Amino acid sequence: MTPSAPAGPILVINPNSSTGVTQGLEAALAPYALPGGPAFECIDIPASPATISSSEDVARAGLALADVARSRPDASAFIIACFSDPGLELLRSIVSQPVLGIQESGILTAMARADRFGIIALSERSVARHLLRIRQMGVLDRMAGEIGLSGVSALDAGTCDRVLVETLEAGRALVRQGAGAIVLGCAGFAPRRRRIEAELGVPVIDPVQAAAVIALGAVIA
Amino acid sequence: MTPSAPAGPILVINPNSSTGVTQGLEAALAPYALPGGPAFECIDIPASPATISSSEDVARAGLALADVARSRPDASAFIIACFSDPGLELLRSIVSQPVLGIQESGILTAMARADRFGIIALSERSVARHLLRIRQMGVLDRMAGEIGLSGVSALDAGTCDRVLVETLEAGRALVRQGAGAIVLGCAGFAPRRRRIEAELGVPVIDPVQAAAVIALGAVIA
Amino acid sequence: MTPSAPAGPILVINPNSSTGVTQGLEAALAPYALPGGPAFECIDIPASPATISSSEDVARAGLALADVARSRPDASAFIIACFSDPGLELLRSIVSQPVLGIQESGILTAMARADRFGIIALSERSVARHLLRIRQMGVLDRMAGEIGLSGVSALDAGTCDRVLVETLEAGRALVRQGAGAIVLGCAGFAPRRRRIEAELGVPVIDPVQAAAVIALGAVIA
Amino acid sequence: MTPSAPAGPILVINPNSSTGVTQGLEAALAPYALPGGPAFECIDIPASPATISSSEDVARAGLALADVARSRPDASAFIIACFSDPGLELLRSIVSQPVLGIQESGILTAMARADRFGIIALSERSVARHLLRIRQMGVLDRMAGEIGLSGVSALDAGTCDRVLVETLEAGRALVRQGAGAIVLGCAGFAPRRRRIEAELGVPVIDPVQAAAVIALGAVIA
Amino acid sequence: MTPSAPAGPILVINPNSSTGVTQGLEAALAPYALPGGPAFECIDIPASPATISSSEDVARAGLALADVARSRPDASAFIIACFSDPGLELLRSIVSQPVLGIQESGILTAMARADRFGIIALSERSVARHLLRIRQMGVLDRMAGEIGLSGVSALDAGTCDRVLVETLEAGRALVRQGAGAIVLGCAGFAPRRRRIEAELGVPVIDPVQAAAVIALGAVIA
Amino acid sequence: MTPSAPAGPILVINPNSSTGVTQGLEAALAPYALPGGPAFECIDIPASPATISSSEDVARAGLALADVARSRPDASAFIIACFSDPGLELLRSIVSQPVLGIQESGILTAMARADRFGIIALSERSVARHLLRIRQMGVLDRMAGEIGLSGVSALDAGTCDRVLVETLEAGRALVRQGAGAIVLGCAGFAPRRRRIEAELGVPVIDPVQAAAVIALGAVIA
Repeated sequence: MTPSAPAGPILVINPNSSTGVTQGLEAALAPYALPGGPAFECIDIPASPATISSSEDVARAGLALADVARSRPDASAFIIACFSDPGLELLRSIVSQPVLGIQESGILTAMARADRFGIIALSERSVARHLLRIRQMGVLDRMAGEIGLSGVSALDAGTCDRVLVETLEAGRALVRQGAGAIVLGCAGFAPRRRRIEAELGVPVIDPVQAAAVIALGAVIA
Repeated sequence: MTPSAPAGPILVINPNSSTGVTQGLEAALAPYALPGGPAFECIDIPASPATISSSEDVARAGLALADVARSRPDASAFIIACFSDPGLELLRSIVSQPVLGIQESGILTAMARADRFGIIALSERSVARHLLRIRQMGVLDRMAGEIGLSGVSALDAGTCDRVLVETLEAGRALVRQGAGAIVLGCAGFAPRRRRIEAELGVPVIDPVQAAAVIALGAVIA
Repeated sequence: MTPSAPAGPILVINPNSSTGVTQGLEAALAPYALPGGPAFECIDIPASPATISSSEDVARAGLALADVARSRPDASAFIIACFSDPGLELLRSIVSQPVLGIQESGILTAMARADRFGIIALSERSVARHLLRIRQMGVLDRMAGEIGLSGVSALDAGTCDRVLVETLEAGRALVRQGAGAIVLGCAGFAPRRRRIEAELGVPVIDPVQAAAVIALGAVIA
Repeated sequence: MTPSAPAGPILVINPNSSTGVTQGLEAALAPYALPGGPAFECIDIPASPATISSSEDVARAGLALADVARSRPDASAFIIACFSDPGLELLRSIVSQPVLGIQESGILTAMARADRFGIIALSERSVARHLLRIRQMGVLDRMAGEIGLSGVSALDAGTCDRVLVETLEAGRALVRQGAGAIVLGCAGFAPRRRRIEAELGVPVIDPVQAAAVIALGAVIA
Repeated sequence: MTPSAPAGPILVINPNSSTGVTQGLEAALAPYALPGGPAFECIDIPASPATISSSEDVARAGLALADVARSRPDASAFIIACFSDPGLELLRSIVSQPVLGIQESGILTAMARADRFGIIALSERSVARHLLRIRQMGVLDRMAGEIGLSGVSALDAGTCDRVLVETLEAGRALVRQGAGAIVLGCAGFAPRRRRIEAELGVPVIDPVQAAAVIALGAVIA
Repeated sequence: MTPSAPAGPILVINPNSSTGVTQGLEAALAPYALPGGPAFECIDIPASPATISSSEDVARAGLALADVARSRPDASAFIIACFSDPGLELLRSIVSQPVLGIQESGILTAMARADRFGIIALSERSVARHLLRIRQMGVLDRMAGEIGLSGVSALDAGTCDRVLVETLEAGRALVRQGAGAIVLGCAGFAPRRRRIEAELGVPVIDPVQAAAVIALGAVIA
């Protein structure tokens, strides 16, 4: 990027259809907007389900994300705002801009803050799917554990009080298992990050914010 | 951080005495300063050597960094701007603010951009020391390789044309070895990042910028 | 399976549109048909490209395979006859029958025959994608190497004489690198397996045959 | 194998002296006999103990197996039907036919069916010995756990009702620990495989059947 | 070493100021003194704290050890008698004699005696620091576990009866977790080694003795 | 061991029939004999081949060693003086005394001296067998490489000048590959250790001496 050319937006794609989640992302990323720097443009995919939870949701989300990415040559970077990182390798293979997955970015950022990380997932059934990715990332020896909540929607993750209680319990259990930093395993958790961090006493990573600042580093220099 | 209280500066500590390197850091980080956000305050340690290269330099730097960190309760975060991450665990044990090492931050950021990373070090003798850290980080399976330059100073890394040529050669060799992203293995490389990235055609990570944006994510929410 | 109920066919899905490859699969699997046991029914997907080579091909193949699998409740097992194992986790999440990927089956079978395996891929650009899977499988320490051919189609892999020469060269190089068994990295290689094995002097694994016999073991007891 | 020459038998060597176990193997493998293909010839070693359980049993079994293998140039493949894989490397070094160990074959087949495997061993004291092999195989990251039964004979594993109850309990515990497929850790379990699979609801691997079909794939093409 | 030149002493440096610990070391090493061989000279560092327990203690100890090592060109080898191995790489970089750390020597010796090791640390807060070293050593897959005592001084580790009771409890728990050999995680445990070994029934490794005999092997030939 | 009871000999069993090798062991271990401590009693097995080189030699050696160990309840420890560690787990399962293998002891001692080790084997065909053990030991990430000589006997390893030249070449190649310590991969190298160490400039480990001093540490306290 040359100083004279304003960078295009960092496109943050929430691959579900929950506009409430998208609004939460906008609020969570607003503080990171650099003056004269790229905007964080948050969008969702109306034809998608409200929460990406099954393997089929993940597979379809990947292709939907590819269509979006191809249609936005103006974007300076893409953030896949779903914790399963749908379509990450696919997007990297078809566009030249930086592409960040929030699972990868969240876990790697936790690893920059403490030796071992824990993950809080929306449901128990995501845990085995995440394990595949973590082994693929080659960072299994840094994981203290992952705990799935009782099957929570992406929207409720950031807005429902009962879910907050459940999230804090999971976080405390992970700290007892040795986690020195906690990764919130869904884009929807963003509104709760600070509160959870204050309660747990260890770094708590919102994976979308984690990806957002890495995107800034990729785009600006 | 509450919105009403301005965050203290993110203290970027160059543990050598090269003010030229420190100035390079200031220039490299200026684009990341958020309006109303924490400043990046870059300092060096005048009593230190011009380049941290020996194991003893690293050990002494760790303790010097601890003294600085303890004296700055106003800082919102600390960045250890030396690629050996001197004193990283030590600082984390004595201050409550986030502490980031640039080797960790640089490598983890490269891992957020591509599957395998390569590192360019100032000299061949740093390579074995870095290997110890990379194995400790548990990310050895993601490393494509590391190449040491011919014994270069931190200042020359970012300013000397001959060193730039050598750096590009090392970068091309690492890409041939399978590196999908390159980590610049010294805080002094910052002025060259964009140029090297343009030449190599893969993401090139300046480790101080990598740590800086992770620090933003830690401090602001 | 009770002895009285004949098992439905083992559906071998070639997710490309090359009927020549499908015919090669039928010939390769014919010798494994047990009397009274499940047939190997080999099909292709006419709407697909002739070779699955890009990440997008892989992603689209996964969803196409899911549609096929869902439409065949009569099948006793599914074999995904593409070396990128498209849709493997997806199919396992939506059908109750055994689902086998030929990359996994081929590599694991090689590991049952010798300590270290080598892979021959159709093109160099598949190698990095395969590496992601092999790390995910957690068997990286058993790999001696992978060599990509010069960008070969699935059909040519089993039929073109020039490709055979290239394949033997790659196989010999892998044996020199320590491979004690060679995995043929495409469903299309099947017609060449015995010839390559005879020339190399080490076990050579056709991944579709490998999956086929594991499927027999899953279905029959 | 040329089509014109009938392949010699696949020799399945039960290295203990329990003819009851050998008969169970014959029954378990009968369904896999291809018309015109190699027979599964199951033998035991009358001079051996009834169950291979100590390290010394394993060492002696290895040499006894070597003598058998050398005396059978007519065999097309050898299966070592003892879960400690006695003499596996030894046999491979002295005969040119394929040699399969049932521990390796069973574990690798489980890995072809699910991400993480569990093992049910005859006794607790075998668990540490198996761990050595699993680390040697380089697949430790795929193991969910191993549970040893209360010191059961190879024959009872497949015939005793009390042992079946114990086996099902161990299987359910392994599933709770995350095992997606269960490996039966003795050649004697064969008569119980289907029943255990039906009860546990996950793939259950009889290691001799696993080796048998891999042997078919090795011999026939 | 030529036979005619008597080797200088093996300098065993206790980097805390507890002379009681140093006396314990002398007693523990006396039986290993070879006639005409190097003496074990045990010293402490009076300006240090009584127990090395914080990360800062470790960092300062490393530099103090470097000063001692540089001042003793007559020594034939150095043993760093603190379980955090302070200054290990540093000393190796500045002196030409063999340098041994007791954590490394103790763990590696345990690995020469049994497949999996357990560690008893003075306090729970050392456990995470040790984990970093064990991952750096690349031997994590051999660790059965580590248990921290209730915050014990180096001197009490070898002299206090209540601590002995606590130590035996920790040892028994580690054996139940699968440890086949136990490493005593402090130089101060030496007076208790034989007693603990007799009670636990598995090899118990005093790390200073472990380093001492490896030093003999390095110096004498 | 109580001070009043003299410890029985440390039995060093050379499982080949080369008395010349046994004499070399006696000479190599003589300097480690403690006054009043256990003697190093070196024996060979006359019925064995002159060099243990095939997998069958290794298997037979294991059982022969078991017979010897069982017949010597007076021994205070056993050292298996063959680099393939024949019978190591077997002996540990049948006698209560400490049992050390020289491959394990040699590699672990090298790891106590430097970050990465290299091995010099008698022949190229031993290298794959050693790799199995090193992966089983879980220390693969510490290995810089292994080089096999041109098929050398155990006796020639320590006595033949041409072999010394070849050994030094292999050692220099391993140092260039990053080895910081070299393990001599046969009991027969003992007479050459000091000379090789002087030439290479890095620690050179004779594996029998390595096991001998670990045995001292096990027996004496």
